[in-house]
Amino acid sequence: MNTDNPIDRLARGLNRLPGVGPKSARRIALEMLTWDTEEVRRLADLMVDVKTTVKACTLCGNLGLSDPCSICEDPRRDRTILMIVDTVANLLAVERTAHFRGLYHVLGGRLSPLEGVGPDDLNIDTLPGRITNGEVQEVILANEPTVEGDATAQFLNQLLSGAPVQVTQIARGLPVGSDLALADQVTLSRALEGRREL
Amino acid sequence: MNTDNPIDRLARGLNRLPGVGPKSARRIALEMLTWDTEEVRRLADLMVDVKTTVKACTLCGNLGLSDPCSICEDPRRDRTILMIVDTVANLLAVERTAHFRGLYHVLGGRLSPLEGVGPDDLNIDTLPGRITNGEVQEVILANEPTVEGDATAQFLNQLLSGAPVQVTQIARGLPVGSDLALADQVTLSRALEGRREL
Repeated sequence: MNTDNPIDRLARGLNRLPGVGPKSARRIALEMLTWDTEEVRRLADLMVDVKTTVKACTLCGNLGLSDPCSICEDPRRDRTILMIVDTVANLLAVERTAHFRGLYHVLGGRLSPLEGVGPDDLNIDTLPGRITNGEVQEVILANEPTVEGDATAQFLNQLLSGAPVQVTQIARGLPVGSDLALADQVTLSRALEGRREL
Repeated sequence: MNTDNPIDRLARGLNRLPGVGPKSARRIALEMLTWDTEEVRRLADLMVDVKTTVKACTLCGNLGLSDPCSICEDPRRDRTILMIVDTVANLLAVERTAHFRGLYHVLGGRLSPLEGVGPDDLNIDTLPGRITNGEVQEVILANEPTVEGDATAQFLNQLLSGAPVQVTQIARGLPVGSDLALADQVTLSRALEGRREL
């Protein structure tokens, strides 16, 4: 098999996408050949568009068409609550709940000594300034519920210990709709610790 | 959340790729924002390239840069053996084994009454002509080992019953490296039926 034909080249390109292995990449490349050329061109254009039109918000680190982003600019958002999230993907997940009306601060990752990610590699230096501006009353830590996310949350908790704000963390517990008998021990322990009066 | 920003538009486009669900699509779109614009443009170009340069072989249905394709044109291939496969992806899988030196015939799918796929929807009409040209001595049915693949193989076996060729089918059995105790009953039964003397 000639490995420098356009199908293989495209498959290798698609293989670089997160979550797309070599086999999926080949499958996608072959499927794309069954699309209309116009459809393929449209998707290709969307990819380039996103890079040329989307920018990072210098205030919170969110991605959007404007800087500051539409959330930071929105006068209806509650400026007394700031939620710290690891990634824009997590910000979007919280937005989809429509249960949070405050502002965000996106770190752009998690502390990971093993992967060489330290505080300087994250969007942390502007954080103290945002918190001590007198408006913010509560900082919600919504880091990923993993070892690295927890380490990041601990670091932030220390960093903010002197600030005149309340620092909270989103709850760990059983996912809604899950099977208690199948829950791992750590999750179940955290669910017990976090029990609330009804 | 504004659902008409470029990230969401790209995510919806990526969601149309096989095996890429809404969540993966969003993850890929956000990851792409961290790439260099040049990298994104390169992948976008590869997608369009593949559509404009790759064509289907009018002889066998394979995809490639030339018509007839490089396999049909290759004088070193054994023209006495013809392997029938469902898809180009399956053809490529067989090619990767480097254990088959004959020619192919790509159906472009499987018979599926439920999905409304009949013989007229597959690349079958040119098949009898290819087989009765006097060169072909053996037809290997390499359809997918599924209900639909088996139905397709049965249909082809009947279609070719009058032709002066030997019709064979690739073996069903235990995958190499698999756990016999975990094999499903049908596979194990087929493995028993297909036992060979050592």
